[in-house]
Amino acid sequence: MKDVGLVMDFYELTMAQVYFENNRNEEVTFDLFYRRNPDKAGYAIFAGLEEVIEYINDLSFSDDDINYLKSLNKFSDDFLTYLRNFKFSGNIDSVEEGSVVFPNEPLVRVRANLIEAQIIETFLLLAINHQSMIATKANRMVIASDNAQVVELGARRAHNISSANYGARAAYIGGVDASATVSAGKMFGLPIIGTMAHSFIQSFDDEYTAFLTYAKTYPDNCVLLLDTYDTLNQGLVNAIKVAKEYLIPNGYRLKGVRIDSGDIAYLSKKIRTELDANDLDDCQIIASNSFDEYLIDSLVDQNAKIDVFGVGENLICSRSNPVFGGVYKLSSVYKDGKYQPRIKISDNSAKISNPGYKEVYRIYNLEGKACGDVLSLYDECLDSNEDLTIYHHMDAWKHKTFKAKTYRLEKRLKPIFRNGKQVYETPSLESIRDHRLNELNSMWDEILRFDYPQEYYVDLTKKLLDLKLSLIEEGRNEK
Amino acid sequence: MKDVGLVMDFYELTMAQVYFENNRNEEVTFDLFYRRNPDKAGYAIFAGLEEVIEYINDLSFSDDDINYLKSLNKFSDDFLTYLRNFKFSGNIDSVEEGSVVFPNEPLVRVRANLIEAQIIETFLLLAINHQSMIATKANRMVIASDNAQVVELGARRAHNISSANYGARAAYIGGVDASATVSAGKMFGLPIIGTMAHSFIQSFDDEYTAFLTYAKTYPDNCVLLLDTYDTLNQGLVNAIKVAKEYLIPNGYRLKGVRIDSGDIAYLSKKIRTELDANDLDDCQIIASNSFDEYLIDSLVDQNAKIDVFGVGENLICSRSNPVFGGVYKLSSVYKDGKYQPRIKISDNSAKISNPGYKEVYRIYNLEGKACGDVLSLYDECLDSNEDLTIYHHMDAWKHKTFKAKTYRLEKRLKPIFRNGKQVYETPSLESIRDHRLNELNSMWDEILRFDYPQEYYVDLTKKLLDLKLSLIEEGRNEK
Repeated sequence: MKDVGLVMDFYELTMAQVYFENNRNEEVTFDLFYRRNPDKAGYAIFAGLEEVIEYINDLSFSDDDINYLKSLNKFSDDFLTYLRNFKFSGNIDSVEEGSVVFPNEPLVRVRANLIEAQIIETFLLLAINHQSMIATKANRMVIASDNAQVVELGARRAHNISSANYGARAAYIGGVDASATVSAGKMFGLPIIGTMAHSFIQSFDDEYTAFLTYAKTYPDNCVLLLDTYDTLNQGLVNAIKVAKEYLIPNGYRLKGVRIDSGDIAYLSKKIRTELDANDLDDCQIIASNSFDEYLIDSLVDQNAKIDVFGVGENLICSRSNPVFGGVYKLSSVYKDGKYQPRIKISDNSAKISNPGYKEVYRIYNLEGKACGDVLSLYDECLDSNEDLTIYHHMDAWKHKTFKAKTYRLEKRLKPIFRNGKQVYETPSLESIRDHRLNELNSMWDEILRFDYPQEYYVDLTKKLLDLKLSLIEEGRNEK
Repeated sequence: MKDVGLVMDFYELTMAQVYFENNRNEEVTFDLFYRRNPDKAGYAIFAGLEEVIEYINDLSFSDDDINYLKSLNKFSDDFLTYLRNFKFSGNIDSVEEGSVVFPNEPLVRVRANLIEAQIIETFLLLAINHQSMIATKANRMVIASDNAQVVELGARRAHNISSANYGARAAYIGGVDASATVSAGKMFGLPIIGTMAHSFIQSFDDEYTAFLTYAKTYPDNCVLLLDTYDTLNQGLVNAIKVAKEYLIPNGYRLKGVRIDSGDIAYLSKKIRTELDANDLDDCQIIASNSFDEYLIDSLVDQNAKIDVFGVGENLICSRSNPVFGGVYKLSSVYKDGKYQPRIKISDNSAKISNPGYKEVYRIYNLEGKACGDVLSLYDECLDSNEDLTIYHHMDAWKHKTFKAKTYRLEKRLKPIFRNGKQVYETPSLESIRDHRLNELNSMWDEILRFDYPQEYYVDLTKKLLDLKLSLIEEGRNEK
């Protein structure tokens, strides 16, 4: 990953210079978390960690960068020298990619000196916000499609190059089967697909010749686009003709037909019937037409005969929810031998941050179903041999107790960097996809419900809640 | 621009191989256009051309790319050798960046051989869709803000790295005054800004010390964030104290205060009164809090005292309209000595493309106001010494005549590439911004109206309309 040093908000540098000049290099902890699931879903799929790891490993400021910063006339030579030699030397812990995650729990925890922790803020948010948003959106579409395939075709509407590439990766993590974006295939090794555009057919004098020419080049992988002129009366007729007159006599099959306009439910059923009547029951129907998860769900409900849903802008731009609102908040400052908690107070109780250097656990019952997540202070040692009572993030009267030995605990944050050195082996995309499936399987259906899901518990230990409430009280008294 | 060869949809390569194997290298023309203004606006601001130019100049397939494609086992060695030596050799004409543009008119026109014209499709769309979307959104916010400044702060919510960088550039073209994204400042030379986060203040034992420390490092550019604890009762009090006790005695002024939460109209008025009462009437008020163009408009209506609007996710993600629907359609194939028109027919008349190798003119009255755009066939020579009648894109009975010598014509598409060589000098960002202002000044207010604007004419010459209607009729008869 090249030339990413300056992918940051300028305030990270203006703050950093103040810290530098005042020898403020105490250790701090920051939490990266989000506050609301996209699209009113009950969960999100975490993605973006690998990009963060590459960034941290490659993070530096080139001579070019330094010269640019110098030209702004805001930074001292000493500070610029510090930046020229900059290397992240802190600790990062993170949830793994493909994990099912929930609002208000730390997804990434940074423990580093003040400057380093601050300088990486924007990039961490940008990578994780983007990829988690797309992975979550993709997963909703995949779930809606039932057992059909979903493929990602959105590059042309993506928010520029890295939106197309990392978006394709995130969509694959979320569950799509392939992408049309070639560069994403090369970068990440994910499956890519693609056949023909309307312009291909229009460039020939007639549709039959276009189909036949295509079939001759790709006899074993022939997918024909039906709707350039007239889907049922012309496109389908020509496709069947090519199958019968060229492909089958030469020992091949027609792999698929694609429709990109019209009423997909109606057309797909008509096409299926006609294909089957012509002994082409193995021919797939691929459809694309501004699908989102609701339209896919509705088409499945109506028994549309679609084998592959092609999704474009509604996935790659997460059109209905194009913002994943991850934030990065200071949770403690190490001072006088301990992590002194910090809290961000707001009139809106949902926006009050959970203070302190924390740990995150998932609580499973003995059947392996996830019953909730609990945030504790770092030095609390939760032990499933003891009863565990978890509390609502603001209200002490809302609590729930798990009896000793009736539950299992899993620490959610895994060590990724220690003293600036990567200690985590990045898993393959395939194992990230397996992890997503395992995590989804551990969730109650109520949490995964498409609309109006049950809210998953993200609760606090008594100690953390007491700390939080006392800090709020202190903050109020300061007024 | 490195490593962009494979930023494409896979179908561009599968089609290209068919063309290659069948020696299909005839010249074709494609139009890039969009069908609907974002956010129900009356216009869009065109941007993304410079990125396209860099792409075309750098477009090639590296050994790495070729090896990747080879590994897919779909391409012949001959075709891969062709790709290894690929260089765009065609012609591109385009509207200039910063232009005010409208639906259904060609914004970019490509004339090249079939393979080359097809291979560049996705990148052209991706760059222009993204940047035009952001430039348009930014322009709406800037217009809403009246005479205040607007700054772009969205990197952390951008759809990955290039969304942040090119988005900042496009926002600047659209009219914002600066961006917080440092890499965008370095890449494009646009002004960057930034001060402090809440975490900065929280990292100190108290807010006053945080403010004072910041003021000492940046006495001539001191902007203080007021809402970490309590905006009016604490933040503002401490900021004024720092101004009076440190900045003013040392010959400096408090440049600004920033608020990031609460009711901005109420708070900004209270703050303005208090600042003025303390002889700090030159101190700017900078506000940020999930602004979009409607909230900005409403705050301006309510006389909120805001000098600088900071906008984040609603701009960089174009949240309310995150898709700019540019498309790229074949318009003609050169055959038997002429450009034979091609049309894409749809049941939806708005989706029927305008056929043929075309020219685009803007019609100005003698006062310099734009009265409409007209699409003609390339070889029609419109001349303002003659009467000009323009026709609705489908209905021959809707027409309008401009009398000879009462109007002026301007060709909208400028030559950018000729035979693969760049013939256009890319303007500076500042002159692109000037161009945007000039173009907006030439528009009637009715077109620029924020809500429910008048629809601008994008009409056809009689010859083009007749051609279109006859092709539609032919297409219908073919059924």
